Amino acid sequence: MSESEFDIINTYFHLNGEAPDWLVTGIGDDAAILNTSSEQQLISIDTLNTGIHFLEDTPPSDIAYKALAVNVSDIAAMGGQPVWFTLAISLPEIDHDWLKRFCTGLSEMAQQYKIKLVGGDTTSGPLSITIQIAGQVPAGHALKRSDAKLGDDIYVTGTLGDAAAGLKLLQQDEQEFDSNQQMLIDRLHRPTPRVEVGIALRESANACIDISDGLAADLGHILTSSGSNDNTMGAELHLDRIPLSESLQQSGLALAVQKELALHGGDDYELCFTAPPSERVTIEVISKQTGCRISNVGTITQEQGLFIIDKEQRQAITTTGYDHFAKL
Amino acid sequence: MSESEFDIINTYFHLNGEAPDWLVTGIGDDAAILNTSSEQQLISIDTLNTGIHFLEDTPPSDIAYKALAVNVSDIAAMGGQPVWFTLAISLPEIDHDWLKRFCTGLSEMAQQYKIKLVGGDTTSGPLSITIQIAGQVPAGHALKRSDAKLGDDIYVTGTLGDAAAGLKLLQQDEQEFDSNQQMLIDRLHRPTPRVEVGIALRESANACIDISDGLAADLGHILTSSGSNDNTMGAELHLDRIPLSESLQQSGLALAVQKELALHGGDDYELCFTAPPSERVTIEVISKQTGCRISNVGTITQEQGLFIIDKEQRQAITTTGYDHFAKL
Repeated sequence: MSESEFDIINTYFHLNGEAPDWLVTGIGDDAAILNTSSEQQLISIDTLNTGIHFLEDTPPSDIAYKALAVNVSDIAAMGGQPVWFTLAISLPEIDHDWLKRFCTGLSEMAQQYKIKLVGGDTTSGPLSITIQIAGQVPAGHALKRSDAKLGDDIYVTGTLGDAAAGLKLLQQDEQEFDSNQQMLIDRLHRPTPRVEVGIALRESANACIDISDGLAADLGHILTSSGSNDNTMGAELHLDRIPLSESLQQSGLALAVQKELALHGGDDYELCFTAPPSERVTIEVISKQTGCRISNVGTITQEQGLFIIDKEQRQAITTTGYDHFAKL
Repeated sequence: MSESEFDIINTYFHLNGEAPDWLVTGIGDDAAILNTSSEQQLISIDTLNTGIHFLEDTPPSDIAYKALAVNVSDIAAMGGQPVWFTLAISLPEIDHDWLKRFCTGLSEMAQQYKIKLVGGDTTSGPLSITIQIAGQVPAGHALKRSDAKLGDDIYVTGTLGDAAAGLKLLQQDEQEFDSNQQMLIDRLHRPTPRVEVGIALRESANACIDISDGLAADLGHILTSSGSNDNTMGAELHLDRIPLSESLQQSGLALAVQKELALHGGDDYELCFTAPPSERVTIEVISKQTGCRISNVGTITQEQGLFIIDKEQRQAITTTGYDHFAKL
């Protein structure tokens, strides 16, 4: 992680100056928390670049859909309701057909989640899409990644590894995909931000993050943010409890690869959250009410590190996940 | 203008859906206006790309300073107080020295205007800096570009053409610059957003915009936004009233070039605003109180178009200014 995004932010962008009283939480979580009146505002910004965050030949409607979805997911991970966004787009040339298709995807996502584009900037440059999103949450009720407690259960929504499997398929020479494979590609291109679940979890979850870099890496962020020198924090994950989709299981990929992708593959944009065992029934109810699968995959422990329990074997794993700079 | 930034926004990014009641003004002005409680929030986003918005060898501290300054200027042009910003930066590689210097410039600007970085995203890609800024203004008091009235005086702050002259100098082969020339380059790299003036103008000005594309082009935006088919709007500018800095006059550039740069050169980030003649005394007072030169340069007229009065001659000019796509 020495040259990672995290270090850059922590090293350079904690600019001088005291925190103003309206700033509840600044840099370091999925979104910043700002006091407005009775509600708090959640603010997050994300960039998608060609060749880094999406393949060159990704349909423009999918690029737009995903660019907005990953931002909505940051608000979901904070237990917030997304409200508005701005878009800054750099375009190498003006291609009207491309722009039309881009806007179709953007509009689809915006309407589905009832969020409003309030401003934008278009300029010339290599294709790059930056979206800044704002959401709201009742004051004091945002779900932070820093509030995990010892003994908490660890949960994930949906199924994991699908998007990474979709990327793997697209990177092969194959041109034709069966319906299972297409589902995995759709999961890569059109993630489903878990806004409804995030909101429902406000009273039950302690810590929450969205899985963009892979379960191990993002759970690692929870452990780092929630633990301290005096109060170390680790996690045990039960490999057989990590939810794999029917499509991933039928994808033709080896089971070991499937499990590897579920642990370390990025881009699923599911939620990973922790909650005390006393909330188990409530979380089952939330799963039913939202129609979203929620799986208990492990426990927050005192022993530092991330451990996988697989058929009675307990093994330490690294939290290394997808690091945008590691791909350079 | 057929392929310009303006058309792209208007053509594509007015996504479907009704305007929610908290959205006072969306796309189309320097910033969006959002209702919060008694204050309104101003939101703007701008991207700076290498080779388009700054030369490759621009010092990183200046790139950062300017990236934030142009966003602060959008808030100033709305009569707002800038409050916070987020930063999304794409970097081709991790260069610690570069990042340190970048943050020095960013921090300098942020502290000078007391604005807080609340979130960010760093990713891999060609150098590109996107800043989204938020400001506030008492409800109903934002200065829009669409409120110019017939008979209004037209004013500009500071001096014009300096930044464009600075760019001209940097594009020559010269390596050494005298103090006047260096001042012009500084004006290009470190624009001074007119926040104090913008706030002071809330009760006096009708329309306001910041000059990023050149006086003619940005005044053109005021005319287009404020006029209608039934109520056409034009402007007369007195060439000899357009304020030229001492440095520009001593720059060695021909007088005709100086005037051309003052009319059409971009990147000065001064304000252009209109106000009824009844406000002349107040505006003189504002100029004295803020220590900012403010020049009355013309009048809003009914005849459509932009006219220059030069030594009794009246001549129509185009509003074409700096268009980021025209440089492709």
